[in-house]
Amino acid sequence: MAYRAPLFHQLSPADQFSVLLELPPPERLARMRMLPLDDAADLIQAAPDAQRDELLGLLEDTARYEVKALLAYAQDVAGGLMNPRFVRLRPEFSVDEAIRYLRLYGRDVAQPIGDAYVLDGEQHLLGIVSPLDLFASPVNQTVDRVMTKDPITVSEDADQELVSQIFREYDLLAAPVVDRFGRMKGVVTVDDIVDVLAEEATEDVQKIGGAGALDTPYLRARFSSMVRSRGGWLALLFLGEMLTATAMGWYEDRLSRAIVLVLFLPLIISSGGNAGSQATTLVIRAMALGEVKLRDWWKVVRREFVVGLALGVLLAMIGSLRIIVWQGLFDSYGEHYLLIVLTVALSLLGVVLWGVMAGSLLPFILRLGGLDPASASAPFVATIVDVTGLVIYFSIAGVALRGTLL
Amino acid sequence: MAYRAPLFHQLSPADQFSVLLELPPPERLARMRMLPLDDAADLIQAAPDAQRDELLGLLEDTARYEVKALLAYAQDVAGGLMNPRFVRLRPEFSVDEAIRYLRLYGRDVAQPIGDAYVLDGEQHLLGIVSPLDLFASPVNQTVDRVMTKDPITVSEDADQELVSQIFREYDLLAAPVVDRFGRMKGVVTVDDIVDVLAEEATEDVQKIGGAGALDTPYLRARFSSMVRSRGGWLALLFLGEMLTATAMGWYEDRLSRAIVLVLFLPLIISSGGNAGSQATTLVIRAMALGEVKLRDWWKVVRREFVVGLALGVLLAMIGSLRIIVWQGLFDSYGEHYLLIVLTVALSLLGVVLWGVMAGSLLPFILRLGGLDPASASAPFVATIVDVTGLVIYFSIAGVALRGTLL
Repeated sequence: MAYRAPLFHQLSPADQFSVLLELPPPERLARMRMLPLDDAADLIQAAPDAQRDELLGLLEDTARYEVKALLAYAQDVAGGLMNPRFVRLRPEFSVDEAIRYLRLYGRDVAQPIGDAYVLDGEQHLLGIVSPLDLFASPVNQTVDRVMTKDPITVSEDADQELVSQIFREYDLLAAPVVDRFGRMKGVVTVDDIVDVLAEEATEDVQKIGGAGALDTPYLRARFSSMVRSRGGWLALLFLGEMLTATAMGWYEDRLSRAIVLVLFLPLIISSGGNAGSQATTLVIRAMALGEVKLRDWWKVVRREFVVGLALGVLLAMIGSLRIIVWQGLFDSYGEHYLLIVLTVALSLLGVVLWGVMAGSLLPFILRLGGLDPASASAPFVATIVDVTGLVIYFSIAGVALRGTLL
Repeated sequence: MAYRAPLFHQLSPADQFSVLLELPPPERLARMRMLPLDDAADLIQAAPDAQRDELLGLLEDTARYEVKALLAYAQDVAGGLMNPRFVRLRPEFSVDEAIRYLRLYGRDVAQPIGDAYVLDGEQHLLGIVSPLDLFASPVNQTVDRVMTKDPITVSEDADQELVSQIFREYDLLAAPVVDRFGRMKGVVTVDDIVDVLAEEATEDVQKIGGAGALDTPYLRARFSSMVRSRGGWLALLFLGEMLTATAMGWYEDRLSRAIVLVLFLPLIISSGGNAGSQATTLVIRAMALGEVKLRDWWKVVRREFVVGLALGVLLAMIGSLRIIVWQGLFDSYGEHYLLIVLTVALSLLGVVLWGVMAGSLLPFILRLGGLDPASASAPFVATIVDVTGLVIYFSIAGVALRGTLL
């Protein structure tokens, strides 16, 4: 069903609240009562605590009762996404009775999908009937002969990420939400899932970029919250990166003797960071899509080890070539240039392999600790790899160049 | 409508093709004819060129004609997503006639949404009628009195990213697709949009992480394509990062005289890279969601300039504090430590501001050049900022430390 939704419906819950505040009381009442119950609950959740009771007071008694029930759910689980109103049919109804029932209540309650749910006396879900099912059946058939049995359901406390995976896997337009006793509590519809998908992707992208999640559209985010969210992460990464200054201090002596080592320092540590960013990003996204689960960690490690080796060899070859060519053209690195080639090539191999392993394992470690894998952002992994990459580089140099440059 | 879709429907087009190959010919025919036409077109597009005609041959004449028309569209525009079959009603039909018509054809054609489309003699779309509209209306009413007029439509050559933005904005379940003369060609349904959203987000995330887009689920991507996609980007970044070795060469003299400068090198250039990653990620995502358009570039520049200044000052303060405290505790930096504080603080401010500006502008430049803004990946921005950050740092050092350390 395609319709031009009234403007108010399209606003975010926070914006709906702002608009509501500016309306005269009678219109405020009308707007509030026009909202689907799940959207009304979101609006109330977006309002300051002090004003929630007043907003609840705008609703009719039944609606208030239902919205209060919704407010008990976290916003990001199936129970918080669902609309608690839906058309209930009994299995022994005839198709004719069902059509008359839908004619009476359908326009208000079965929007936007139009399905009706067949329940037994204890509210257990038996099946689903669509308007097309009813059209296509003889009018004196009973509903239980017409309905689709064993529909896919989601649990009321299922996380919205899982719910959206189920919608994608089964191409659902709506999913009935049931409690742990199998009693039907409401319906999640695909338009909510579309918002969930966009929201989760935005959150992941922003975290992967190391910006923290922003919550509001970019151009409307306030300066203060923008600086807080980005500055917080940046300062944290900076504190981590300060370890490089400390680690460099340990090697000050080697550095002053072989200044040539410094020339390749940014190249080597950034290569590890880049390889790690790639790995962590691929794993985070695969986890978000449900393609990779916690138990797949070993599969991922084996895979990434081989990929990391291949990538390390690739960069080591390019790096060696660069030094050999420059040496041939400009005699840049003196008589021991082959030792420098060896040092740089081995370091690149080690740093890239380490970056890939660290980057691919970090999301698993975060998830194991109950944290969001997407926090293993590209800059976060790069920072970890910078510090350790430096140690790898100078250790290899210490061995390879002992007695010549060092 | 919630239903447990048969397994075959849930497979990706490429997998459907593999399954099809292994079936005996009669079953192959049946499977192919069971697919919605847009999915059949996707399957044929996923097959090798040589086998497309054979697959088309499995379809009935009308279906083959329609699928051929679909194959003419790019896969990522509205025309490539749409199903060309839909229920057509004439405006002068009565509700009763419409119901009888839907009863005859609805089950095959109006899945999964159930809407019927009201067209005039030239196939121009006049309105949309849902089964609930029909239920709720007197049977002798005409369809044009019942239908929703002026529905949201999408153009047949609209990019799938734009189509998904329209679905999100108007909470659509389906959108009629029209050609440039306003004639209706088919229907895009929200289940396709759910896939598009996930696909576009995956592509963006992978690009932002600097991994290139992978196209297949992580655990099923082949080793060779994984190394090619990641190795290509990594090598490109490596070539860019090699400029750091060249730039460092210019400053070898300064470096050897003030080895203390080297200690802060990774800290300073990575801070610029991190700040740039944040900025580019936020802008890329805001563009993907349609929150930021090309014409907003100046708004973004002004915003990011102020944010960049604030972030630069923040890191300059932390960095200065670190040097002053270490100097107090360990006397690490000698008598000129205040000049080092000045150099590091000014460099951080400059590098962070530059990183933020480069990171936020790059997606605009890419889009202006007709490229995907998401290619301005975090590692890409970090690499650009590494090279320039180094120049900023040593230039500031050259002025601040002249006559003392240099």
